[in-house]
Amino acid sequence: MQVIRSPIRLRSLVRRYKMRGEKVGFVPTMGALHEGHLTLVRRARRECDQVVVSIFVNPLQFGPREDYRRYPRVFSQDRALLQKEKVDLLFFPSAKTMVPGRFCASVDVGPVAEPLCGKFRPGHFRGVATVCAKLFNIVQPELVYFGQKDYQQTKVIAELLRDLDFDIQMKVIPTVREKDGLAMSSRNRYLSDEERKKALSLSQALIFGKKRIRDGERDPKKILLHMRALLRENEVRRMDYVSVVDPETLKPVPRIRGIVLLAIAAWVGKTRLIDNCLVRV
Amino acid sequence: MQVIRSPIRLRSLVRRYKMRGEKVGFVPTMGALHEGHLTLVRRARRECDQVVVSIFVNPLQFGPREDYRRYPRVFSQDRALLQKEKVDLLFFPSAKTMVPGRFCASVDVGPVAEPLCGKFRPGHFRGVATVCAKLFNIVQPELVYFGQKDYQQTKVIAELLRDLDFDIQMKVIPTVREKDGLAMSSRNRYLSDEERKKALSLSQALIFGKKRIRDGERDPKKILLHMRALLRENEVRRMDYVSVVDPETLKPVPRIRGIVLLAIAAWVGKTRLIDNCLVRV
Repeated sequence: MQVIRSPIRLRSLVRRYKMRGEKVGFVPTMGALHEGHLTLVRRARRECDQVVVSIFVNPLQFGPREDYRRYPRVFSQDRALLQKEKVDLLFFPSAKTMVPGRFCASVDVGPVAEPLCGKFRPGHFRGVATVCAKLFNIVQPELVYFGQKDYQQTKVIAELLRDLDFDIQMKVIPTVREKDGLAMSSRNRYLSDEERKKALSLSQALIFGKKRIRDGERDPKKILLHMRALLRENEVRRMDYVSVVDPETLKPVPRIRGIVLLAIAAWVGKTRLIDNCLVRV
Repeated sequence: MQVIRSPIRLRSLVRRYKMRGEKVGFVPTMGALHEGHLTLVRRARRECDQVVVSIFVNPLQFGPREDYRRYPRVFSQDRALLQKEKVDLLFFPSAKTMVPGRFCASVDVGPVAEPLCGKFRPGHFRGVATVCAKLFNIVQPELVYFGQKDYQQTKVIAELLRDLDFDIQMKVIPTVREKDGLAMSSRNRYLSDEERKKALSLSQALIFGKKRIRDGERDPKKILLHMRALLRENEVRRMDYVSVVDPETLKPVPRIRGIVLLAIAAWVGKTRLIDNCLVRV
């Protein structure tokens, strides 16, 4: 595995792969890798000739009061994990390379970026879309891999790819969970033992909501009331949102039918966690 | 020359060129071609293995009260001209293909889009950048060709290419003029004989300003005063701007030194014309 810091160098290597007709798969990450990331990498490894992983903590997707500075950076651990997965190229650009002082472009993707996390993290998805556009242009992969845990992000990227005509196919891979159900997240590292227990209530609330739907409940209000109560019982009081939405538009549904997305963003101590699940009636 | 309406088809042809290691040059246009466009095409023909020209009247770059609907559309004339220049592919997508109903992405490029035309045509450069990002992703050329007549546009595209890491080099080609000095423009077709005479005052004002600088004048205010007077004498009264600006930032300069850009946007009847020239002291 080669570790590459320069976009120009990365591009010239990828160009060589493409001249040989090889398929390039790309997994963009912010590092602090866990089994969720590694599942994406393994999938890329199976499906592509060359696998490129990027580690870049993207400053544009953090708000001024968010955790950009303390976001976990564990490069040598990450590198070892990716080496084991037989990744070909690890792209690890500096913040200065990707977002130099004079940087000013921005990419917006419209309505899917507005509700849910978009409402509580203004500018977040613009930052995601902008840096992903850059990464896609640098790596020029055939396939990109994203996790369903960041469901809204996958919708934003889908719009980006479609509206700006990127010649790239996206694969969305199901959320990987700890044995007890907690969705894998780099931010789980922030949690104390006690917080770790409380954090479990997010996935439990989703399971609970899903069960209520399966049992025949069709009124989102009633389901959400119980999901919120379950979170509160576990001392998770600060909820950015607990919602039942249309999985395409991400807008709240007045009544449950077809497929819906249950989605939660809530704070456990100083850590903001998200989780979601799709339910088909 | 093949005429291609489908982005997918275009992409598959270009991919074939690239697999053969051929260099692809691209000239994006809105059609109603004149010698300015053809100069870009000839340059691409000289420098590249395959030449792609697009004709697309981009609705996103027109304001609601602008001339999108009446913009000249003369496809068969244009096609004949491009055939003569031995263009390989003419990309002629429909508005629905490029900007379908659900389209919502947008690309902004920051401060260079704000002054001059940016101020008088809100959203114009966002529309330009967004559709150029699409065209660049569809055509994936090594080289793109733009005319200096749309000077601010070349700056916007330069930022777009740099900030979003497009693997594309831009060539800016000097403005082509009629024998009497009028800058070639598709919008010249709108002019009556009488207006055509008045329109000449734009290039004359630029020549006049340039001469004043060459003669030692260093105060932009004095130069602009005379340039505006010259326009008014020719019954060109509605001036969006007559400016002396820094050619990089496009901001007005308080004093002339190094290289400056003289730039004019003015209305002749119902036709908005622009012209500019660089002056090195």
